[in-house]
Amino acid sequence: MTDLIRATYVVASEEPFDVEKKAIGIALGQTTDTWTPIERGDVERLERHRGRVLAVSEPVQRDGLQLAEISVGYPPENTEGDISTLLVMVFGKVSMDGAIRLVDLELPVSMHADLPGPKFGVPGIRKLLGVRDRPLLMSIFKPCVGLRPEDLAGMFGKQVLGGTDIVKDDEILPDIPNCPTDRRLDLCLEASRAAEESLGHKTLYAINLTGRSDTIVQRARQLVRQGAECLLLNVLAYGYGTLDALARDSGVGVPIVAHPAIAGAIGSAPHHGIAYHIMLGTLMRAAGADVVLFPSSYGTVAFPKKETDAIRDRLTCSLANTPAAFPGPSAGIHPGLTPRILEDYGRDVVINAGGGVHGHPMGSEAGAIAFRQSIDLALGGISPVEADVPELSSALELWG
Amino acid sequence: MTDLIRATYVVASEEPFDVEKKAIGIALGQTTDTWTPIERGDVERLERHRGRVLAVSEPVQRDGLQLAEISVGYPPENTEGDISTLLVMVFGKVSMDGAIRLVDLELPVSMHADLPGPKFGVPGIRKLLGVRDRPLLMSIFKPCVGLRPEDLAGMFGKQVLGGTDIVKDDEILPDIPNCPTDRRLDLCLEASRAAEESLGHKTLYAINLTGRSDTIVQRARQLVRQGAECLLLNVLAYGYGTLDALARDSGVGVPIVAHPAIAGAIGSAPHHGIAYHIMLGTLMRAAGADVVLFPSSYGTVAFPKKETDAIRDRLTCSLANTPAAFPGPSAGIHPGLTPRILEDYGRDVVINAGGGVHGHPMGSEAGAIAFRQSIDLALGGISPVEADVPELSSALELWG
Repeated sequence: MTDLIRATYVVASEEPFDVEKKAIGIALGQTTDTWTPIERGDVERLERHRGRVLAVSEPVQRDGLQLAEISVGYPPENTEGDISTLLVMVFGKVSMDGAIRLVDLELPVSMHADLPGPKFGVPGIRKLLGVRDRPLLMSIFKPCVGLRPEDLAGMFGKQVLGGTDIVKDDEILPDIPNCPTDRRLDLCLEASRAAEESLGHKTLYAINLTGRSDTIVQRARQLVRQGAECLLLNVLAYGYGTLDALARDSGVGVPIVAHPAIAGAIGSAPHHGIAYHIMLGTLMRAAGADVVLFPSSYGTVAFPKKETDAIRDRLTCSLANTPAAFPGPSAGIHPGLTPRILEDYGRDVVINAGGGVHGHPMGSEAGAIAFRQSIDLALGGISPVEADVPELSSALELWG
Repeated sequence: MTDLIRATYVVASEEPFDVEKKAIGIALGQTTDTWTPIERGDVERLERHRGRVLAVSEPVQRDGLQLAEISVGYPPENTEGDISTLLVMVFGKVSMDGAIRLVDLELPVSMHADLPGPKFGVPGIRKLLGVRDRPLLMSIFKPCVGLRPEDLAGMFGKQVLGGTDIVKDDEILPDIPNCPTDRRLDLCLEASRAAEESLGHKTLYAINLTGRSDTIVQRARQLVRQGAECLLLNVLAYGYGTLDALARDSGVGVPIVAHPAIAGAIGSAPHHGIAYHIMLGTLMRAAGADVVLFPSSYGTVAFPKKETDAIRDRLTCSLANTPAAFPGPSAGIHPGLTPRILEDYGRDVVINAGGGVHGHPMGSEAGAIAFRQSIDLALGGISPVEADVPELSSALELWG
């Protein structure tokens, strides 16, 4: 018997319930049994495919609910070793059965070994960019939808001049007639090369990969042949399987930035859905994301700090043969937050800002410069008031 | 200006909030703007890509929360006309911003026209099966995971003898070494052909389609070449894009049964996520499901009746050039429920039972017979006590 997949649920109910019975119902219902005793239910062959209850907690009372934690061990043999069949087993039908939340998911080493994991991760992206040990700065085109490729290329140039390491498309910009992906790739790459020649600073352009599910990997290859050096993917819109396929594909071979769009539909309720650290931490890394963006605990769209800590831990914990992925706390990030980000994430972090770059009173270039100044000062332990940093000072004055 | 995509949200908050301001924040934040005023924010070109607030309600108090409904109109031009870019626009980032639920989604006729819709739907499946106007009976292998193809083929034969129209794999059975998909397809098709020859009754085998995202359409084609006449897909595990691609593919060309696995992670919370009728109704039909399974309001895993009614309506409402898809109320269904199912769904329904067939005291064949008897009697308006139906009587005695 190989190691089991360990899934932990919290079940909530207004009425007292039999936790042990509920646990057995999940373990059997998600594997070999059903709601009636059945003709072949005793077949011995079923035994090695059956889920087993690993632990149950005493119910606790909270918010007028009885809450109990249940851990079930599932045989990896019931899956194809991929995330699609894994999710159907651990949270397929049972997800629809009342108030139940998947709060933890541990995969055996054998499954991690079969899943692709990040092709680049922290070490690979640092090498690509030639940035040894400072946090990376990512900026987002804002506005984005509605602009033409020429407009975006102009904005790209400014962000790069300010010292941005990665510029990403807004996740809501697909391949649309007034801003075709191919065209903006060409123009932004041109801007990137020009900046690299003049400044010696390498910038990756994370271009939004979209398209039909059956041809999206070919589409990615085509963009890479055209020069793309980094891709952005709305993983939950296209499925973990698409990320997995991209990460495995030898014709893709560039870092993938995973965007959390739609994650709130699954993760934000207290007693339902799937914990963010599973979706955006464990599974994103296992499926091959090199950078994972998520709302920070500081900004405009905020996650609880406990959740962002857990996401960070799943992305960066030691895992045999799987490099760490960069956490990318996002949404409402401005340079005043940089010291806190460094404290919470260390140096292996992508600081991701849109409005905090483009809303700078002196413009987007100054916005990026302010961030780089904030990083340098925070790393050096120097207070901005002691330094001559007009861009940063202006940002701090506005946003605090 | 074409018609807009209309998305309706319910926002919940413990604190009173400015509904109009929240609505504008969503409409702009999901399209052209960000949290800071920006350099190019006034560019005229953005105007036609901007979301607009269509309606807001007065907040109401419920469960200690302030609830308000907000409708936003989005330009279809901001999407690629597919469900992936649609979902990122209407519920991407905003899904992570507090307690917000997408409660309705209306697509303009132009988008429906570009999406595949069911290739068969109700009329196409009726024609395939030669069943003009009675409800269809679908049964599920139970147990399933752990059995060999030979075991399943034996069970298949019994279900078919009892008069099942569609036999489906359990959604948790993928392509695993002890039960390879190819092998069980061969053996079950053999059983199906034998029954058709002897009884003249056609049965479809909905085989669980699994595999790598980048090759799953090819995999489906291969199964169809091998004889598959119907596919089962865990749509939410593989993405609506995969369903769309299968429905469009001329090499697939068989009905697709959509399973709702994982839907509870998105739909079951009261104030978060996406309403079931959007996910399992509107989007499944638009992306090409011919039959959509979902928990009934009667059984072991139950949805509220208001939700199942809404799913039914979205699957079957009149929609230009798009056939209706079969609703398939499931989970804990037994023959005693047949009259209620007919009352709630009419004749265009797939009655889907696993335990309610295989748990029959006289075995699986009798289990299927009992269902067919219950359908015939309900259609004829005859009470079971007046008829000579030992299989049905036995089922009613056990399950009521």
